[in-house]
Amino acid sequence: MKLLEDRIVKDGSVLSDTVLKVDSFLTHQVDTGLMKEIGKVFSEAYKDAGITKIVTIEASGIAPALYTAETMQVPMIFAKKAKNITMTEGILSADVYSFTKQTTSQVSIASKFLSEDDVVLIVDDILANGQAAKGLISIIEQAGAKVAGVGIVIEKSFQDGRQFLEKEGVRVTSLARLQSLENGQITFMEADA
Amino acid sequence: MKLLEDRIVKDGSVLSDTVLKVDSFLTHQVDTGLMKEIGKVFSEAYKDAGITKIVTIEASGIAPALYTAETMQVPMIFAKKAKNITMTEGILSADVYSFTKQTTSQVSIASKFLSEDDVVLIVDDILANGQAAKGLISIIEQAGAKVAGVGIVIEKSFQDGRQFLEKEGVRVTSLARLQSLENGQITFMEADA
Repeated sequence: MKLLEDRIVKDGSVLSDTVLKVDSFLTHQVDTGLMKEIGKVFSEAYKDAGITKIVTIEASGIAPALYTAETMQVPMIFAKKAKNITMTEGILSADVYSFTKQTTSQVSIASKFLSEDDVVLIVDDILANGQAAKGLISIIEQAGAKVAGVGIVIEKSFQDGRQFLEKEGVRVTSLARLQSLENGQITFMEADA
Repeated sequence: MKLLEDRIVKDGSVLSDTVLKVDSFLTHQVDTGLMKEIGKVFSEAYKDAGITKIVTIEASGIAPALYTAETMQVPMIFAKKAKNITMTEGILSADVYSFTKQTTSQVSIASKFLSEDDVVLIVDDILANGQAAKGLISIIEQAGAKVAGVGIVIEKSFQDGRQFLEKEGVRVTSLARLQSLENGQITFMEADA
C-alpha cells in the first residue's frame, strides 16, 4: 500500500534495528483518513471470503480494525488484555508471550460473540513474532469459528511472525513489509496489497 | 441521543444497581454504524469550539473518539495506560484512581502531540466518577492546551463524575444519562445531545 509506505518513510522513526516508531499516525496519535484507506484495502482483499466478524486486540489494533469492519459492514470485536467486572459469562482465553517484555499475558473474548458460523478476519497494527495473532487464532478456533486470514498494517518481515502464521496455513495480508531497519534505514519488501 | 438510548434498552444488561453491561456494541464488540452516528453528534455539539484534537484513553474510548475525529477532521490521540518501549521522548502523565479496582494507575501522552495552540475535546465511553477524565484534563493542561469539553457516550448520572467536572468548569456532553439502574430497570435523564 503505497500511501502507507510513504507515510512510514515520512513520519516513522527508526529507534533500533528492530524497532520502528509510528506513534504519530497509528499507535498513539491516529490519522483517521489513513485508517479509512487501510480499512478499504483489507476489505477489498477479503471481499470474497464471507467475513462475518473482524477481531483485533486492544489497543492499537482497534483503529484499523474498526474501519475494516465499517467497510465490510460487520461487527468488530477487540480482545481484552485484562478481565473486567462486566465479563461475567463464558470467556475464551489464550496466552500471549511477549518477546520484548519476556512475559506471558492472557487475552480474552466473551464466547457469545463468536460461533461456528463465523468467518473471521483478524486485523492488527504490527506483526513481529506473531504471538498476538496466534492467541487470537486460538480463541477463534476454540469458538469453532474459521479464520479467513490476518490483516497486518506493518509487518516486520525480518522477524518470524509471518513465517509462523503461514506454516499454520493462515493467509497473511500485510500492507507494508519492513525488510530491514538496519543503519536507521527503512527498506520495504513487496507488500501483499 | 435516542438511537443510543434505544440500543441501551435493547442490548444493555443491568448487572447491579451500579453496573450496566454494554459489551455487545460499545466496550467489547463494537457497532461501527452506531459509533459513526455518535461521532456526528459530538462533532455537531462542538462544531464552533475550534477543536484541533480529540483525546481519549485506551481502549473502549477509541471507537467513539475515532469517529468524532473523522467527522471533525482532526487527529485522535489515545492516552496509554502503560509505558511502551517506543515512548522515549517527553511524556505527560497523570494518576487515575479507580474506585472499582481501588488502585491508582498512570496514563500518559507523548508531549509532542499537544501544544498550547490545541483546543481539545475529550471523548470517553463511560463517565462514572470522572477520574479518567480528570487525568486527561491534567495532561492536556500540563501541555498548556485548552479543554473545550468532555463528550461521554454513557453517563452514570447517579455517580458524581459529571458534578465533579462541572465544578471544575468543564463542559460535559453526555449522549445517554443513566438516572438509575435500580431493580434491574434502566431509567434515563434528559441527555445533552
